Amino acid sequence: MGTSDIVKFEALSPAEFFRRNREIAGFSNPTRAIYQTIRELVENSLDATETFKIPPSIKIYIDYANQSKSWISIYAEDNGIGIPGNEIPNVFGRVFYSSKYRIKQHRGIFGLGAKMVVLYAQSTTNTPILVRSAPLKSDAIYEYQLMIDITKNEPVIVSQRTIENKHGWHGTAIKVVLEGDWIKAKRRVEEYLRRTAMVAPYAEFILRGPDEDDVIKIPRVTTKMPDPPKEGLPHPKSVDVELIKQLIQRDPNVPIFEFLIENFDGVGEIIAKKFLDFVGLQPDMPVGKLMNDELINFVTKMREFNEWKRPRADWLSPIGEDILAEGVRFVLRPEVVFTVTRKPSSYMGNPFIVEAALAWGGAIEPSDKPTIYRFANKVPLIYDEGNDIVRKIVDEIDWTQYRVKFPAPLAIVVHICSTKIPYASAGKEAIAEVPEIENEVRNAVREVARKLRLYITRKEKEQELLMKYAIFSMYGEEVV
Amino acid sequence: MGTSDIVKFEALSPAEFFRRNREIAGFSNPTRAIYQTIRELVENSLDATETFKIPPSIKIYIDYANQSKSWISIYAEDNGIGIPGNEIPNVFGRVFYSSKYRIKQHRGIFGLGAKMVVLYAQSTTNTPILVRSAPLKSDAIYEYQLMIDITKNEPVIVSQRTIENKHGWHGTAIKVVLEGDWIKAKRRVEEYLRRTAMVAPYAEFILRGPDEDDVIKIPRVTTKMPDPPKEGLPHPKSVDVELIKQLIQRDPNVPIFEFLIENFDGVGEIIAKKFLDFVGLQPDMPVGKLMNDELINFVTKMREFNEWKRPRADWLSPIGEDILAEGVRFVLRPEVVFTVTRKPSSYMGNPFIVEAALAWGGAIEPSDKPTIYRFANKVPLIYDEGNDIVRKIVDEIDWTQYRVKFPAPLAIVVHICSTKIPYASAGKEAIAEVPEIENEVRNAVREVARKLRLYITRKEKEQELLMKYAIFSMYGEEVV
Ligand SMILES: Nc1ncnc2c1ncn2[C@@H]1O[C@H](COP(=O)(O)OP(=O)(O)O)[C@@H](O)[C@H]1O
Ligand SMILES: Nc1ncnc2c1ncn2[C@@H]1O[C@H](COP(=O)(O)OP(=O)(O)O)[C@@H](O)[C@H]1O
Ligand SMILES: [Mg+2]
Ligand SMILES: [Mg+2]
Ligand SMILES: [Mg+2]
Repeated sequence: MGTSDIVKFEALSPAEFFRRNREIAGFSNPTRAIYQTIRELVENSLDATETFKIPPSIKIYIDYANQSKSWISIYAEDNGIGIPGNEIPNVFGRVFYSSKYRIKQHRGIFGLGAKMVVLYAQSTTNTPILVRSAPLKSDAIYEYQLMIDITKNEPVIVSQRTIENKHGWHGTAIKVVLEGDWIKAKRRVEEYLRRTAMVAPYAEFILRGPDEDDVIKIPRVTTKMPDPPKEGLPHPKSVDVELIKQLIQRDPNVPIFEFLIENFDGVGEIIAKKFLDFVGLQPDMPVGKLMNDELINFVTKMREFNEWKRPRADWLSPIGEDILAEGVRFVLRPEVVFTVTRKPSSYMGNPFIVEAALAWGGAIEPSDKPTIYRFANKVPLIYDEGNDIVRKIVDEIDWTQYRVKFPAPLAIVVHICSTKIPYASAGKEAIAEVPEIENEVRNAVREVARKLRLYITRKEKEQELLMKYAIFSMYGEEVV
Repeated sequence: MGTSDIVKFEALSPAEFFRRNREIAGFSNPTRAIYQTIRELVENSLDATETFKIPPSIKIYIDYANQSKSWISIYAEDNGIGIPGNEIPNVFGRVFYSSKYRIKQHRGIFGLGAKMVVLYAQSTTNTPILVRSAPLKSDAIYEYQLMIDITKNEPVIVSQRTIENKHGWHGTAIKVVLEGDWIKAKRRVEEYLRRTAMVAPYAEFILRGPDEDDVIKIPRVTTKMPDPPKEGLPHPKSVDVELIKQLIQRDPNVPIFEFLIENFDGVGEIIAKKFLDFVGLQPDMPVGKLMNDELINFVTKMREFNEWKRPRADWLSPIGEDILAEGVRFVLRPEVVFTVTRKPSSYMGNPFIVEAALAWGGAIEPSDKPTIYRFANKVPLIYDEGNDIVRKIVDEIDWTQYRVKFPAPLAIVVHICSTKIPYASAGKEAIAEVPEIENEVRNAVREVARKLRLYITRKEKEQELLMKYAIFSMYGEEVV
């Protein structure tokens, strides 16, 4: 019996792969599936609004779709830029199809979220997803019912029609029926929306549950919006050989000097010249002429060269100290909030910014450790805290040095934004270990902690004074 | 400006997706990339030997491949069943191509590991992978140099030849050159191999580092091997609509009665009949005739029906109490080891078995908490312990009740095997939360803990007796 008799080989399509391994995209059980579905839809809605400076209005309606309440219908609607009609089938029916593979801060980056929702719905209830969308300034609203041909990784159009867009609506509405446990998922979903509101206080949300009077409204608490991120070019330090090869293939005849200036972030004539001297190449050599060894050398030198400019932060959209403070104040109702937005930094050529808020007192429940709220590109990270770098760093800090004695009413909020968040999984819950990011998180937390120390010290002094005064006036009275 | 001017859509191939998001497959930095590479190669080698009852002999040679030592060459060789010559290109050059998408216990399950290694090598050093393989009883050894066409997700054959297999060799040898930090990765790799040996004491490993005298040999300590797993059928409780549709498509004309018996685990004539009564369908109805609603009902009923047999454990290959004890004894050198292999159990229709070992005293360093060794399908899980269910369960146990006072020389080994390990990410480091598995882990740990209590009690009594005897003889002597 030879090898070919005992093993059989098979190629899966991306859709089949994720249907079978849905846990790695966060769909690990019926409760989590509901949470993950809402999360993917809301994140797409926020990307489609905020990134274009539209103040987000997001509605989510939940209903039971069968008698035993094991089928849940989820409707989500936004006021975003919409989806061009002809793109709708691929956007929901082809795994790895996305508009977000650009160098720019986004919540999505995997081209997977919307498709996982369709796959999960289809695998559990065999129902199509309903999509209705109108792009900006569109005369028509496009409507589709879609499923996925899992073996081919292709959309299947179940029905399709075009409706006149009488009122100039733009946005996207989705309805999907899937198996799940709403009762158990409810708390997580609410928590997720509250936390999202914390970092996007310019958004408003309505969540209507299946039971009567079960409505949560999270209002918009500020009209200030952060500047949207711009689209960028790769930083010369973050390239790999494959990327360079792909760029060369686009136009092999372009001189290497221009190739550098056109394709990379922050490379002007002077730096391009310096770099080519460093590598020992002629500026006018067509880039396609680089032999394999030269190519490797070229890339190696790009990583070694020390005179590149820092990666630009224009592609990032931090929340900003004011908006963050407003969000935290609204959600946590503390006595006081301190926030900081750190300067841009970078890892492997990817720019990132860390922001932190510290909230103290007021409605915050005292606890034995600081309560932590983690965010990455404005997405709240709810699961897997035990493993996260933020938890680690906050726990390492000696809080007595900031005059905090536990139990204390202390909450720490950390937001990391980057053109590339190094998630440890497609479920987007934990961040992989990157020393540069860890450093910045430590600095940000220390910075707000110092402000707290100042505040506590001042308050203690005031209280001392008050006490002295009280005692004084007591004695004063006695004397009189 | 309409929507289509401001966003651009793009489809990535699976290869491009994983090139860009290599963190989610465990390739998050140069240290971890080396570790992950060796891990993927070793796991493929173990699957290709042990699963076919061949005692594994695995050699790994590490060399520096450039002057600055930032390029590492990794050679891995096994004595497994080999790969049919015509399959080699796809196996290394097409993401999601695998022989392990079967219902059977395997280390691999993603069809990704070998390709990630090629992608990473190619992105960092632009060198092809070298593969040499001879299937069982093959007259020829097939040799390929391969890269991946990332945009097409297809293998590129750089060179190819066939060599006469004079000595009847079978197995696979791979050589790959990639960027990495060997100095930092070394410890992790050694730890990984030692832990692998703990649960596969019938395997032997040689790891030769780039520096002189830098050789680690892990000998085979037993010739006993566990029975290989058999290939199975899906359990009726674990099906989803998509799977049923795929099975129906294969032969829509088959009567539903036979359809059940042929395609599912543990379904004989009696149970098939009972189930069809339960659903209210005629046994001779061609399965392809099921209308959409009936199909949904059929699947829903499959999950509700309570009279299916338990999922079969023949598809699993636990380590077994004896082999596990030998492995633990060899690696940890404790005073005593207790092991347990629990009865098969199941979640969502997937069979699983939990095994645990408790090692006490001897060469184990006392520490403030039990040291934990986690394994899934015989793969050691090294990263992300903070998040793992095993850590949680062991920490919840009140150890004083088992007469353990910390610091104590206590190590706990937990092995979970299943046809489907619910990994939380493609990096295969953490297990998603599944209540059934948590229960079994708790029971297994308690079982070995009770044995420890007995042992400690008995030892204390013996010592008491010894003490009494000593005192007695002291007095005795005095009396004399
Ligand atoms: N609510 C929405 N509004 C506008 N565009 C959307 C919306 N939902 C999805 N899309 C489009 O569909 C694409 C695919 O979405 P998804 O599968 O979630 O992947 P990703 O968000 O990672 O790109 C997005 O890139 C976006 O262009
Ligand atoms: N050392 C090896 N010996 C035999 N077969 C191998 C070996 N390495 C890889 N293969 C084959 O290549 C396939 C793909 O490997 P891989 O990409 O690691 O995915 P997976 O292990 O998840 O199947 C395996 O299923 C196996 O059939
Ligand atoms: Mg998305
Ligand atoms: Mg994870
Ligand atoms: Mg593998």
